[in-house]
Amino acid sequence: MAGVEVDTELERLYEDFGRHGLLPLWTQREDLMPVTPRPAAAAHRWRWRDLYPLAQRAGALVPVGRGGERRAIALANPGLAGLPHATPTLWAAVQYLGARETAPAHRHSQNAFRFVLEGEGVWTVVDGDPVAMRRGDLLLTPAWAFHGHHNTTDEPMAWLDGLDIPLVGYLDANFFEFGEERLSGLSTPDRSRAERLWGHPGLVPVGVAGSAISSPLSAYRWEHTDAALAAQLELADEGHPGAAGPGHAAIRFANPVNGDDVLPTIRTEMHRLRPGAVRSARREVSSSVWQVFDGSGAFVLDGVRSEVDRGDLVAVPSWGETEIRANDRLDLFRFSDAPVIERLRLNQSAEIVR
Amino acid sequence: MAGVEVDTELERLYEDFGRHGLLPLWTQREDLMPVTPRPAAAAHRWRWRDLYPLAQRAGALVPVGRGGERRAIALANPGLAGLPHATPTLWAAVQYLGARETAPAHRHSQNAFRFVLEGEGVWTVVDGDPVAMRRGDLLLTPAWAFHGHHNTTDEPMAWLDGLDIPLVGYLDANFFEFGEERLSGLSTPDRSRAERLWGHPGLVPVGVAGSAISSPLSAYRWEHTDAALAAQLELADEGHPGAAGPGHAAIRFANPVNGDDVLPTIRTEMHRLRPGAVRSARREVSSSVWQVFDGSGAFVLDGVRSEVDRGDLVAVPSWGETEIRANDRLDLFRFSDAPVIERLRLNQSAEIVR
Amino acid sequence: MAGVEVDTELERLYEDFGRHGLLPLWTQREDLMPVTPRPAAAAHRWRWRDLYPLAQRAGALVPVGRGGERRAIALANPGLAGLPHATPTLWAAVQYLGARETAPAHRHSQNAFRFVLEGEGVWTVVDGDPVAMRRGDLLLTPAWAFHGHHNTTDEPMAWLDGLDIPLVGYLDANFFEFGEERLSGLSTPDRSRAERLWGHPGLVPVGVAGSAISSPLSAYRWEHTDAALAAQLELADEGHPGAAGPGHAAIRFANPVNGDDVLPTIRTEMHRLRPGAVRSARREVSSSVWQVFDGSGAFVLDGVRSEVDRGDLVAVPSWGETEIRANDRLDLFRFSDAPVIERLRLNQSAEIVR
Amino acid sequence: MAGVEVDTELERLYEDFGRHGLLPLWTQREDLMPVTPRPAAAAHRWRWRDLYPLAQRAGALVPVGRGGERRAIALANPGLAGLPHATPTLWAAVQYLGARETAPAHRHSQNAFRFVLEGEGVWTVVDGDPVAMRRGDLLLTPAWAFHGHHNTTDEPMAWLDGLDIPLVGYLDANFFEFGEERLSGLSTPDRSRAERLWGHPGLVPVGVAGSAISSPLSAYRWEHTDAALAAQLELADEGHPGAAGPGHAAIRFANPVNGDDVLPTIRTEMHRLRPGAVRSARREVSSSVWQVFDGSGAFVLDGVRSEVDRGDLVAVPSWGETEIRANDRLDLFRFSDAPVIERLRLNQSAEIVR
Repeated sequence: MAGVEVDTELERLYEDFGRHGLLPLWTQREDLMPVTPRPAAAAHRWRWRDLYPLAQRAGALVPVGRGGERRAIALANPGLAGLPHATPTLWAAVQYLGARETAPAHRHSQNAFRFVLEGEGVWTVVDGDPVAMRRGDLLLTPAWAFHGHHNTTDEPMAWLDGLDIPLVGYLDANFFEFGEERLSGLSTPDRSRAERLWGHPGLVPVGVAGSAISSPLSAYRWEHTDAALAAQLELADEGHPGAAGPGHAAIRFANPVNGDDVLPTIRTEMHRLRPGAVRSARREVSSSVWQVFDGSGAFVLDGVRSEVDRGDLVAVPSWGETEIRANDRLDLFRFSDAPVIERLRLNQSAEIVR
Repeated sequence: MAGVEVDTELERLYEDFGRHGLLPLWTQREDLMPVTPRPAAAAHRWRWRDLYPLAQRAGALVPVGRGGERRAIALANPGLAGLPHATPTLWAAVQYLGARETAPAHRHSQNAFRFVLEGEGVWTVVDGDPVAMRRGDLLLTPAWAFHGHHNTTDEPMAWLDGLDIPLVGYLDANFFEFGEERLSGLSTPDRSRAERLWGHPGLVPVGVAGSAISSPLSAYRWEHTDAALAAQLELADEGHPGAAGPGHAAIRFANPVNGDDVLPTIRTEMHRLRPGAVRSARREVSSSVWQVFDGSGAFVLDGVRSEVDRGDLVAVPSWGETEIRANDRLDLFRFSDAPVIERLRLNQSAEIVR
Repeated sequence: MAGVEVDTELERLYEDFGRHGLLPLWTQREDLMPVTPRPAAAAHRWRWRDLYPLAQRAGALVPVGRGGERRAIALANPGLAGLPHATPTLWAAVQYLGARETAPAHRHSQNAFRFVLEGEGVWTVVDGDPVAMRRGDLLLTPAWAFHGHHNTTDEPMAWLDGLDIPLVGYLDANFFEFGEERLSGLSTPDRSRAERLWGHPGLVPVGVAGSAISSPLSAYRWEHTDAALAAQLELADEGHPGAAGPGHAAIRFANPVNGDDVLPTIRTEMHRLRPGAVRSARREVSSSVWQVFDGSGAFVLDGVRSEVDRGDLVAVPSWGETEIRANDRLDLFRFSDAPVIERLRLNQSAEIVR
Repeated sequence: MAGVEVDTELERLYEDFGRHGLLPLWTQREDLMPVTPRPAAAAHRWRWRDLYPLAQRAGALVPVGRGGERRAIALANPGLAGLPHATPTLWAAVQYLGARETAPAHRHSQNAFRFVLEGEGVWTVVDGDPVAMRRGDLLLTPAWAFHGHHNTTDEPMAWLDGLDIPLVGYLDANFFEFGEERLSGLSTPDRSRAERLWGHPGLVPVGVAGSAISSPLSAYRWEHTDAALAAQLELADEGHPGAAGPGHAAIRFANPVNGDDVLPTIRTEMHRLRPGAVRSARREVSSSVWQVFDGSGAFVLDGVRSEVDRGDLVAVPSWGETEIRANDRLDLFRFSDAPVIERLRLNQSAEIVR
């Protein structure tokens, strides 16, 4: 056939593909199967100094209650076209609860945690167990656990919510159920029942089975996290192994039942960099959100430097090159979809590529 | 504040959210967290009688070679806006290789299989091991295995390709590498080396370690699949357990190393329904693609009946209600993202909801 | 104190220890904790030409029936002081069933297998499923499965029984129950129901769950074992990996559900050495019993050579140095307590010592 | 044949069996395969008031040093014929270290722990990491870790040693190596490096991998154990689950890496019974040794009551019926071979029998 005829034939073929719900591989192979990841999501930083005042304004204007359920303001990755997704898999939001307010109980198949940047006086009630929320604490509400929050003070409180909403939506595995309108379990104990049962290092109760799916220890307190990070750096000073890198300590929050991540789809970690320390540039197959818990420094993301201060949030797409530099002592909370990648064994090729 | 002022304030707040890369939860909570899954993907049927002639026309018009790599025509789910995705996680395509043609070698982090509806005479060469492709066979090319295909006959051959391209793309875990232009391993043995090592029931070689990530048995032959299905129905006739349901036999293709699915992200199964048998309506948290291998019948998808014949393909989104009815003996190949859902423990809430 | 006084004091102390049920470590530390294993069990060979006539004589003199249960003659390791133990953990016996005889049903917590050196015509009925026994077959009766045997022919038949009787006795985990006096399930199918469900390479039934504890595939047929061994040697001839060593093929019998050993406490393997081939001297933390299935050769056990012929049995204690030499083609069945050592992680130190 | 002839023939047969290293099953089937376990080991109690003075006398008479290695006095179960075994699998001893004494370093494939009834001032140095020993602490020296002890005070100290010496000997998996004569790592820190890295509840270090075989947390401190037990009883008082039974709290010491037992062959637990509480009679497939840490009460073993006081030790064979009664608050340390039984799946039949 002559070239023109072929072109016409080809056009007709492509039209017929379209008419029958088909698309050829050969015209888009490179987009579908690039040599290395080409995330649509962008590396991005959100400033706490922008976020927090907006949360305060929402506190004044938007009631919290049944339907909307939570006064939570989500990070919308600029690469993800108007979706409230910090990365393709992760949802991150600032939740703001005003003085004496209550967020009603519900449960869902999405896994959730809270990480507290500042404040105290809110209890989250997880399947009837009241869990105090205080600066530096990580609190869990695993899939299908009922949970609501109530503020017992005359001050508002704000914290970071992390969920796997985008992932669970993508996989069409959403389930949701409303709980009681008025929370029961309004007592305000210092420690939750979960901590009293599961919060002893290396000790597991004989009389109750903990979940192997998500951690039964619903609160990880700052006091322990801080001590663990401090110990690693002290050990390094004494010449012993333990630190994650030079001037860099890091812990992973784990399920005491089996050592797995606290949630099946979300890894949570805390990092500490000494003043002047650098976590050297690296790429990972996994997307993350970081929050500055304390101190200041900079993220160098694919070569672009962003200064960060207390409360600032940074989204890092998969395979994004990330270097972290501490000015003064820099404490960073991080959550990521690393368990997803690992459970699906999608980190194997990257290991070979390196 | 008066209502109007509040509205203005609120508008301004939402604008400011947008300016700072934020989105509120409360206006879209129900969309983000519906009571049960609301897949964008549609239940859909593609007719082989439409597909195959289009593949033939592509065979005449489109060369196969480096760059486009494969003459593969993908099912584009009508709910997924122009993407070549059969379901949110699964890619399914008809691949067509003309007489004496060769598809060049490459490898990628995406997991792939081929399932052969008809024909023979093509060998797929997987990491140097030539694997014959024949009607009813399931052939694997796990992540990061080099593979190319060559047609040794004067007849074209077409088959079903299944991959996790959408999932791996969503998770930004794509890696790709070109292999040799001209295939080595052009011998045409009846059985691959993989089968000679791993294809003996319940026997594993002592001298080589098989992969626990994906099956080292790269070919599952129709002869065995057929025998396994026949045996289940015979056992049922004799009053013994074994069948998947009344008049319904089913096997899952498994890794002989550990019994897991053959690929970490894709489950593959073969089903046989007796003439007149019905697989009763059910919902699953997991999306699937079915292909009619033999016989005819109907899929009733969320209450809508679609007749199916040999070669027809049906995509079923997660939580789509699916009933299957056999006219004559109906053999069905199925692949799904069930291992993804199970490994991420996202089937737990559904178990409770039921 | 003076030396004599000390000695007297010490004698009195040791007497007092004895009176209170105590024993000092320091006088026996080296025996309790030797530098490398010092098995009481001996490396030993039993000749089939001795064993079989004795089994025949027992067939004439000793009835088989309730109470004694089985006409089984056990290998008594000369190092184990009159106990019917082939090694500290393993029981091995020749079982002899006369023409038309039946061994009544029972079940027990001990795990058992049969390996058939010669003959056919006996069916073992495992939880109601009749399993034909033929030369070269491995048949399983896992813990707590009811089983009896019946000889449908006018010829006697003898085979090897392997159990974990010594181990289960040592751990005081014995449970035993008599079954029906007259076997039900007296049909004599060529293939058991277990094989029809589970005996297809890499295919698992969707409708029934197999046990992860012991293999649901109760028969491993010689035809498959032979083919797997032959294929390994052919692959080696063609320059491909697969063989266990030069001129040496080996397979492990595995649970198709998860790839584990067929029984939780016993590993079973078949080895083939080419004429003149040598399996070089090695030590393992694990005790074994080998039986010559075909051919002739020699075991060199801690430097002492024992010739072996068809049917001969060899017990090898843990850490015994073992070399195997084939005269003509030598096929060897082996069973061992390797899963015990591995599950208890007692092979770790040895790995470091090597 | 006539009866007499048969008897003669049979005698001759049995003689010939003996000559060829064989033993018939039918004469000893019931002993080999009893209906339920018939342990040779006896239920037995040792009094601390007997043990401790003997240990003191040994301290005066027997030096500690290379060769004998440890001044440890083992419990010899009266049913086990002069062997220094508390149960068939477990070794239990009182180790006594005089003022300023040092027990030299060594390592072995046997797994060991120490449990401290009273005193302090000894450090055990585990692979160079000094671990303080104090009342109520559980200290680990897993297989193949170098360890020695040194007493930094002018007072002697005694504690319970628990090892799997009988099991490892039975399985012929013994390996042993002398270490340095003079301990290095003579510093006396309050907390070991292991605790500083691994002793934070639910937190695991990112920079070092812990062993999945045995716990990297080499010290479990009484402070935590006590708090965990107290919390369970408080929760019970408040009407919440958590306790092991009425008036009965119990924890299992676990590997923070994966939640497994701290040693692959030994389970360790601490139990607390309230004054007057009863742990009802039960049987388990597993042998145990209990030590009274505090309080007094009674063990009713197969119906026989033995009073117990602080320091007393009780050995319970597998399947021995055990009831425990508290007079005043009774704290009990227990170790057992439960992981052996579970890993070998020998508890399955018992589950069915019950």
